[in-house]
Amino acid sequence: MRAALPHKFLIKHQSPVKILMTGVFFMKINEKVIQFEKPPVITGFAGVCGKKEGEGPLAKDFDAIFEDTTMGQQSYELAESALLHDAIIRALAKAKKSSADVNFVLSGDLLDQCMGSAFALKDIDIPSIGLFGACSTMALSLALGAMLVDCGASCAVAATSSHFCSSERQFRYPLEYGGQRPPSAQWTVTGAGAAVVESLGSGIKIPAVSIGTICDLGITDANNMGAAMAPAAKKTIVDFMQATNTGPDDYDIILTGDLGYTGSLLLYELIEDESKINIRKKHRDCGLLIYNLDEQDVNSGGSGCGCSASVLCSHIMKQMASLKLKRVLFVATGALMSPTSSKQGNPIPSIAHAVLLES
Amino acid sequence: MRAALPHKFLIKHQSPVKILMTGVFFMKINEKVIQFEKPPVITGFAGVCGKKEGEGPLAKDFDAIFEDTTMGQQSYELAESALLHDAIIRALAKAKKSSADVNFVLSGDLLDQCMGSAFALKDIDIPSIGLFGACSTMALSLALGAMLVDCGASCAVAATSSHFCSSERQFRYPLEYGGQRPPSAQWTVTGAGAAVVESLGSGIKIPAVSIGTICDLGITDANNMGAAMAPAAKKTIVDFMQATNTGPDDYDIILTGDLGYTGSLLLYELIEDESKINIRKKHRDCGLLIYNLDEQDVNSGGSGCGCSASVLCSHIMKQMASLKLKRVLFVATGALMSPTSSKQGNPIPSIAHAVLLES
Repeated sequence: MRAALPHKFLIKHQSPVKILMTGVFFMKINEKVIQFEKPPVITGFAGVCGKKEGEGPLAKDFDAIFEDTTMGQQSYELAESALLHDAIIRALAKAKKSSADVNFVLSGDLLDQCMGSAFALKDIDIPSIGLFGACSTMALSLALGAMLVDCGASCAVAATSSHFCSSERQFRYPLEYGGQRPPSAQWTVTGAGAAVVESLGSGIKIPAVSIGTICDLGITDANNMGAAMAPAAKKTIVDFMQATNTGPDDYDIILTGDLGYTGSLLLYELIEDESKINIRKKHRDCGLLIYNLDEQDVNSGGSGCGCSASVLCSHIMKQMASLKLKRVLFVATGALMSPTSSKQGNPIPSIAHAVLLES
Repeated sequence: MRAALPHKFLIKHQSPVKILMTGVFFMKINEKVIQFEKPPVITGFAGVCGKKEGEGPLAKDFDAIFEDTTMGQQSYELAESALLHDAIIRALAKAKKSSADVNFVLSGDLLDQCMGSAFALKDIDIPSIGLFGACSTMALSLALGAMLVDCGASCAVAATSSHFCSSERQFRYPLEYGGQRPPSAQWTVTGAGAAVVESLGSGIKIPAVSIGTICDLGITDANNMGAAMAPAAKKTIVDFMQATNTGPDDYDIILTGDLGYTGSLLLYELIEDESKINIRKKHRDCGLLIYNLDEQDVNSGGSGCGCSASVLCSHIMKQMASLKLKRVLFVATGALMSPTSSKQGNPIPSIAHAVLLES
């Protein structure tokens, strides 16, 4: 239970200097939503992907499809960096910004010590805030970018990436081994997404964000990420709706990151069991949108930081820009596991961050 | 080169709602320092460590010294989580805060997928912002925590950790192997530190912070982190002094995180070569403070996220609380390498973030 507001809030609220992030100022019991008086604006966005994703249903929406997923690099890890770098440059170009105009770049990825981001950003002269949120990173970077822009930064870039080959050999088996996957397993997306967040300008608005807390329901199956992440998604979605006094009908879609088929069904059950809210009609999952599950042999769907990043920053944001979608609640989830923690038999803690998008 | 200020800044500055983080508003060419009109305050801090660190010169300053560095856990990774958890709880207690009073906890570590933080935080019900900055994480979490508090959050916790045994087997060799180390190699500190940052209250003030950019001078020797990180420290220190029009004499000490003996000497040369600034008299390095280099067989000194975290949040902050130190420029550096990137022969990108502390 979150404590009642200390008196100082009331005092501080009288000062006009501090009326930013009013969600924090008026945080009620259990309320964790940060609402912006002047919503930051996404002025540029780009989603790029690899060959397999380019053969899926969203092909026409991606800014670039790289048939050669090595990106001409000497390793899959550097290929992922190249993908991320490409997405950032495209997003900056669309926002008509140079790196010199950007105050912060917020980025992270799934690779050990976030190698993907380090090598993507090392030649971009922008102050760099390294994040780790596993597959929730796109929502975390967007939320944090919006907060920093709201409190004074003029421009921030939120970005993340993943690569099937670098993830597969790090988290599962060497590619050459060709291990069998259970139906609940997901396919790591080769892709990256980036969004430019500014205090002024026209574009998709970010009226509110929510930083999640870590959940742990004791799931230990690293081949069932959906089950590990569904409780975190449930908590963040229910918290957000309670805090903003909204329901599924208030959103065009509720977009999760990469719960996949298994995790999405679990999410419905968890939300309905706890709060009687039915999101089935409004729910979409980036991991289910990006591939054709019947034909592309991806089992439960797509996953990885690059899954929600590439889908949100292309397919979804393009529909928002053309006003086909007006109000999207983006909730990306992360399974905070490592090969080491899994081998040690530990459960998989998970987290979900939310970003409200309005066009 | 950073672009000149767009006109919108001048317009926005007239609005009293947006006078936060004036460093960003008045950012001049190449200026990257964020100055706070109302400096956030560190109201509680704690540094804990293991047996070896407890046998060093700072023993009397640590809040806790754990003779059993397994912390009673089943793995060294979980032991690191326990250390971090302990430091956070102690810092909260000193600040007289419960987790319910905290808006955000900002934490990260050196382990793959930041396992240390995930398992330390999974039972603390606080919205969690996962960071990755390698050994710069304490400065990154403090800087970001100060920014979030400045723009509306009432309380944030900045924390990080490292553990010799979990790092050694992840980055170097199995402990049982007993590999020889070159003189330039450093000893990963078993320790953790946490600081509670609030908008109001009495304590150590944070008047300014600076987020660094990633440097890469092509160093590839993973046994010479100091050499890889020194250029980043140089850049951030020189940028900070130029932006704030200050010199070494304006600070009681300039505290780097874990450059060690080799890296510190390189830092002096790099700064003197470029800007004729001599910081030798004012410079201290947490990696050199925490061990007795002549007796404790740590080669070039201590390293790891927990090195600067445990030293800053105990030895240094205690001296600031007792006014023995009044003005400290804390600059923690991170080597953004992974075992994978090193094995592939890639260079080691590095980054340094700065936090100005005043008592």
